[in-house]
Amino acid sequence: MSELLGVAVLGAGHMGADHIRRVDQVVSGARVAAVADPDAERAKEAVGGIGGTGRITVHTDVEAALDAPGVEAVLIASPGEAHEEALLAAFARGLPVLCEKPMVPDSAGALRVVEAEARLGRRLAQIGFMRRYDAEYRQLKSLLDGGRLGRPLMLHCVHRNVSSPRHFSSAMLINSSVSHEIDAARWLLGQELSAVTVLRPRPSAGAPEGLLDPQLVLFETEGGAVVDVEVFVNCGFGYEVRCEAVCEAGSARIGAAHTMVVTAAGGAREEVPQDYLVRFADAYDREVQSWVDATRRGLVTGPGTWDGYAAAAVAEAGVRALGTGVRTPVDMAPRPPLHDRA
Amino acid sequence: MSELLGVAVLGAGHMGADHIRRVDQVVSGARVAAVADPDAERAKEAVGGIGGTGRITVHTDVEAALDAPGVEAVLIASPGEAHEEALLAAFARGLPVLCEKPMVPDSAGALRVVEAEARLGRRLAQIGFMRRYDAEYRQLKSLLDGGRLGRPLMLHCVHRNVSSPRHFSSAMLINSSVSHEIDAARWLLGQELSAVTVLRPRPSAGAPEGLLDPQLVLFETEGGAVVDVEVFVNCGFGYEVRCEAVCEAGSARIGAAHTMVVTAAGGAREEVPQDYLVRFADAYDREVQSWVDATRRGLVTGPGTWDGYAAAAVAEAGVRALGTGVRTPVDMAPRPPLHDRA
Amino acid sequence: MSELLGVAVLGAGHMGADHIRRVDQVVSGARVAAVADPDAERAKEAVGGIGGTGRITVHTDVEAALDAPGVEAVLIASPGEAHEEALLAAFARGLPVLCEKPMVPDSAGALRVVEAEARLGRRLAQIGFMRRYDAEYRQLKSLLDGGRLGRPLMLHCVHRNVSSPRHFSSAMLINSSVSHEIDAARWLLGQELSAVTVLRPRPSAGAPEGLLDPQLVLFETEGGAVVDVEVFVNCGFGYEVRCEAVCEAGSARIGAAHTMVVTAAGGAREEVPQDYLVRFADAYDREVQSWVDATRRGLVTGPGTWDGYAAAAVAEAGVRALGTGVRTPVDMAPRPPLHDRA
Amino acid sequence: MSELLGVAVLGAGHMGADHIRRVDQVVSGARVAAVADPDAERAKEAVGGIGGTGRITVHTDVEAALDAPGVEAVLIASPGEAHEEALLAAFARGLPVLCEKPMVPDSAGALRVVEAEARLGRRLAQIGFMRRYDAEYRQLKSLLDGGRLGRPLMLHCVHRNVSSPRHFSSAMLINSSVSHEIDAARWLLGQELSAVTVLRPRPSAGAPEGLLDPQLVLFETEGGAVVDVEVFVNCGFGYEVRCEAVCEAGSARIGAAHTMVVTAAGGAREEVPQDYLVRFADAYDREVQSWVDATRRGLVTGPGTWDGYAAAAVAEAGVRALGTGVRTPVDMAPRPPLHDRA
Repeated sequence: MSELLGVAVLGAGHMGADHIRRVDQVVSGARVAAVADPDAERAKEAVGGIGGTGRITVHTDVEAALDAPGVEAVLIASPGEAHEEALLAAFARGLPVLCEKPMVPDSAGALRVVEAEARLGRRLAQIGFMRRYDAEYRQLKSLLDGGRLGRPLMLHCVHRNVSSPRHFSSAMLINSSVSHEIDAARWLLGQELSAVTVLRPRPSAGAPEGLLDPQLVLFETEGGAVVDVEVFVNCGFGYEVRCEAVCEAGSARIGAAHTMVVTAAGGAREEVPQDYLVRFADAYDREVQSWVDATRRGLVTGPGTWDGYAAAAVAEAGVRALGTGVRTPVDMAPRPPLHDRA
Repeated sequence: MSELLGVAVLGAGHMGADHIRRVDQVVSGARVAAVADPDAERAKEAVGGIGGTGRITVHTDVEAALDAPGVEAVLIASPGEAHEEALLAAFARGLPVLCEKPMVPDSAGALRVVEAEARLGRRLAQIGFMRRYDAEYRQLKSLLDGGRLGRPLMLHCVHRNVSSPRHFSSAMLINSSVSHEIDAARWLLGQELSAVTVLRPRPSAGAPEGLLDPQLVLFETEGGAVVDVEVFVNCGFGYEVRCEAVCEAGSARIGAAHTMVVTAAGGAREEVPQDYLVRFADAYDREVQSWVDATRRGLVTGPGTWDGYAAAAVAEAGVRALGTGVRTPVDMAPRPPLHDRA
Repeated sequence: MSELLGVAVLGAGHMGADHIRRVDQVVSGARVAAVADPDAERAKEAVGGIGGTGRITVHTDVEAALDAPGVEAVLIASPGEAHEEALLAAFARGLPVLCEKPMVPDSAGALRVVEAEARLGRRLAQIGFMRRYDAEYRQLKSLLDGGRLGRPLMLHCVHRNVSSPRHFSSAMLINSSVSHEIDAARWLLGQELSAVTVLRPRPSAGAPEGLLDPQLVLFETEGGAVVDVEVFVNCGFGYEVRCEAVCEAGSARIGAAHTMVVTAAGGAREEVPQDYLVRFADAYDREVQSWVDATRRGLVTGPGTWDGYAAAAVAEAGVRALGTGVRTPVDMAPRPPLHDRA
Repeated sequence: MSELLGVAVLGAGHMGADHIRRVDQVVSGARVAAVADPDAERAKEAVGGIGGTGRITVHTDVEAALDAPGVEAVLIASPGEAHEEALLAAFARGLPVLCEKPMVPDSAGALRVVEAEARLGRRLAQIGFMRRYDAEYRQLKSLLDGGRLGRPLMLHCVHRNVSSPRHFSSAMLINSSVSHEIDAARWLLGQELSAVTVLRPRPSAGAPEGLLDPQLVLFETEGGAVVDVEVFVNCGFGYEVRCEAVCEAGSARIGAAHTMVVTAAGGAREEVPQDYLVRFADAYDREVQSWVDATRRGLVTGPGTWDGYAAAAVAEAGVRALGTGVRTPVDMAPRPPLHDRA
């Protein structure tokens, strides 16, 4: 391995450009080796914005980028629809991958990726569930795993965005936004989600016409825990992600972190972040650093393709539940031995 | 009217004794005139514990207590099963009443009380939903009514007790504990609750054998809001009542009040009250003071028999939903004109 | 003693009118029997605003009020300059007194009151240091007395007002505002204050011309503790009273109580009270109720004339320190046996 | 410049080893090129613990380390007594430096460093005041600079350690611990500190025999602000650093950050960090990353030698004030043009 891990970044949009900057300027031990985007100009612009270390090639074709000189690992930040092909191409070359979520938007495609990796006989891909790298989530995970509070009984979650992108659909509240809570719940509880119910309050006046926003999404787990998620993507006032784990001997809350308190004009006030890239900036940094470190040691330590598949399968059940209004069981393929829990 | 309103207190148990002390020592403008309890010793003991102002008579019979000299108003703190008879006896005498919750445990009996009062043609009874007198709940109510945050979309509620009394049943989590949230939600939102669903996590190891504890109780309102209530009566660590109102333009949370923060031995810590009589001590004081003040002016200003009936009807639907596991509509009688909203 | 303790209220200004309302409508076991104010119209107005129980007489003369029918106790809420005469008149009649702070503005006059009471051979007067009745201060006092945190080493105090009255002088920041902290520190620590230093930051642009506002007032106690007080009476944004006790084994903070948190428009916000009558409303109620209860049992249980004298003596040293800029010892008379600590 | 900035780290103790790890594994764009420590074993051990990129040489001699192949910049983490010589050696070679605090323990030596750099005619050294890189301090600095709260009038600071190292003296509470607040106050206010007073409470039972711990250190600034600092290095319960800036139109507090709140056994609890390397871990990372980034662009952007000198001069006045108990003016050399404020 060379001094710095050579990374091909696929996708040079909002998220891709952020990752290019991160690999170049924040992460230790890696460099951008290639960038691919169907829009060559956009790719060049993203590369131009960084100093860069060594040679960086720019491509419109994914396979060309993977085959470019110096490429030792792949970071997939293209739209979800392009992920399956990119993952399979990386697998074919034996390249380690960090793939932004959703791994693959539909569970059938996601399962094909799981199976392709299983045929390789070793894990190659980490999926970008960055909350697992957030300091507060890790604190909560560690507390739950320590067992001091006993068995978790419920998770109360809140996921709020200031406003939703133009194309956002009612289903996307579940398969794009709540998918974070799906992974977080599976990870925190160490259990699969087995059923989902969706309650639909009368939509907020602040939501675009026709969008069912907010929703209250309720999960049951195979171990008998219950997870409720308020998802509200046009709340107007901030990006808020909170989670309370209610256990047999106590409760733990994260996500209402205090920072600076300003007292002025009759009130004491703390700022609420407006954007997930602000709230989870450190988590993204740690996620990519951790992936680089593990990759340089030949390991995969983060969430894998099975987690990507599970999120897709649960989200699909959630979208069905949103449509029917009734409790909907989650239908999941058997977990391959490669992804057995430790 | 005499200088001090003469109050007959029915019931001299835990709650009755507390009200006897409150009327005698805390509330301005009232005095205990009579006490009734089937257990005469208990009644005498409760009276003996106070200084007392003027003559106090002790009874085992409710009607005798209502007819005792100096009785001008009635405070009912006997077990719920005895309330209907006591209320009707007070109505028959035209005596103003403050009746502890539940007004009447079953909705049929509760409706009979509503109808009896309606036949009188004037309101005589206030029901003991003391949260309406809690400073934080009033702050929240005032904020919601002010309209600054827009229409309320959801309420997230938590109701936790350290441990449940010995006789507590799974149904009582709803018709005894959650009945507070039922009234609070109706009051805060100014809407009736129209359907209820109950999710049942696997019971806590800390709950008595056979008790479905905790539960997640979900209400829908006639106006399209959604209310979720975690009820957990054997949480082991404290008495916690929290409520977050999520509105179109913001969210407001109460019930996580900070008081003294003690930093010692590696942590910053705030005490959590262990008992509802501690958490809502001020609310009980204000409730009874408010009732005495209104009564002396010939008014009824607090929650009335209709609110008592509605709580019973919704709780009954909740208990059915707990049994069936499915969404259950609430069946309510028409609201009599006497209880029209202002 | 009659059913309700008959109270003569001296002074019908802002504070006096509030106490008249409190005795009449909030406190149990007392009634207003007489009101005196040099401005007869103001006294009549204050009495007219309450329902009243029994006969209430209105006076312009203090002695006439004390001699009025039904008067069994005195609440002094007139300006500080009138207190000495009123206290001595009450003592001459053996009437129990609750006297608003300052007991007597100058320490020489205060000492005369202490001595007059000592000659009676029994305590008759309680001084209105209402913080001793605030729930948070009591929690802190109880924690310190319990000894769990070890010996207190320092108190960090903040005392902020939105704005000062027109006549407020630089000395009044100490002898009117900080006098509350002087009493609170003496009470919390159970020690006398032995020296004082005042630091004078460049005055705020929000302070009236010539007013030294804010100030940092530093006390040393006879037991070697240090107390720092920020006093800022034109802070513009709210009425804030905070106190942190730093002890050998931990620290405890009060006065930054959370209540309702409203998240809207990019921030999470809690209201800060604008007025001491709001912040300490419950403390005033408890103070007067406690005084009435003790008085009806023939006792004096609250802070006494010695505490009133000590506050005056320390404040005088503070005003000297403000003028000179140097550390100034507090000169105190010996404590009379009547005021020995338990 | 090579791909990765080659850094010589001087000192391989607790702090040096942490920086070696940081440069190797956390920071982007740099590598460890040489390590020097009088204890060769300790240096080898620190190097052995990292993967390393390229060749790393180990030295017992500072000059040899600076002359080692690949060294382009110097990070000084040796004891304070060795800093002056190391800084001058780096200056002689034109090497950019990041020097841990204290820059030089005594102000005379510190001034020699300032003057040596001034003779070079360009800034070469950044001093390790890492609080300037802490997210909360930066938020506060940005708020103050924005002017929304008006002119700062006071800073209330708290600096607590669980326990002090064995050799810690009473003077070190000021010149080692409070030196952080000295720099933070100068930076936040943009003013020099002009006088200092120290109050000495009776020492805590938890402090070693003879150590004056805690202390209350009071600074006045040239602009008329007042800064109070509680320094308590044997508080026993945690590492707490707090700062409240009181301004003409409001107040802002940092350092009481909430993270995870655990409610169990009667209380709601948050952990307090036990160590400055935990509390300021991110600040150290950002500090070194920022220094590497600036150095690679040929710039010095952080606090400089003048800040190192000022901290030493103020701390010396503080130590004198601790001894005498009286207000002590700070005597400072004129600021050289190289360090003019922007």
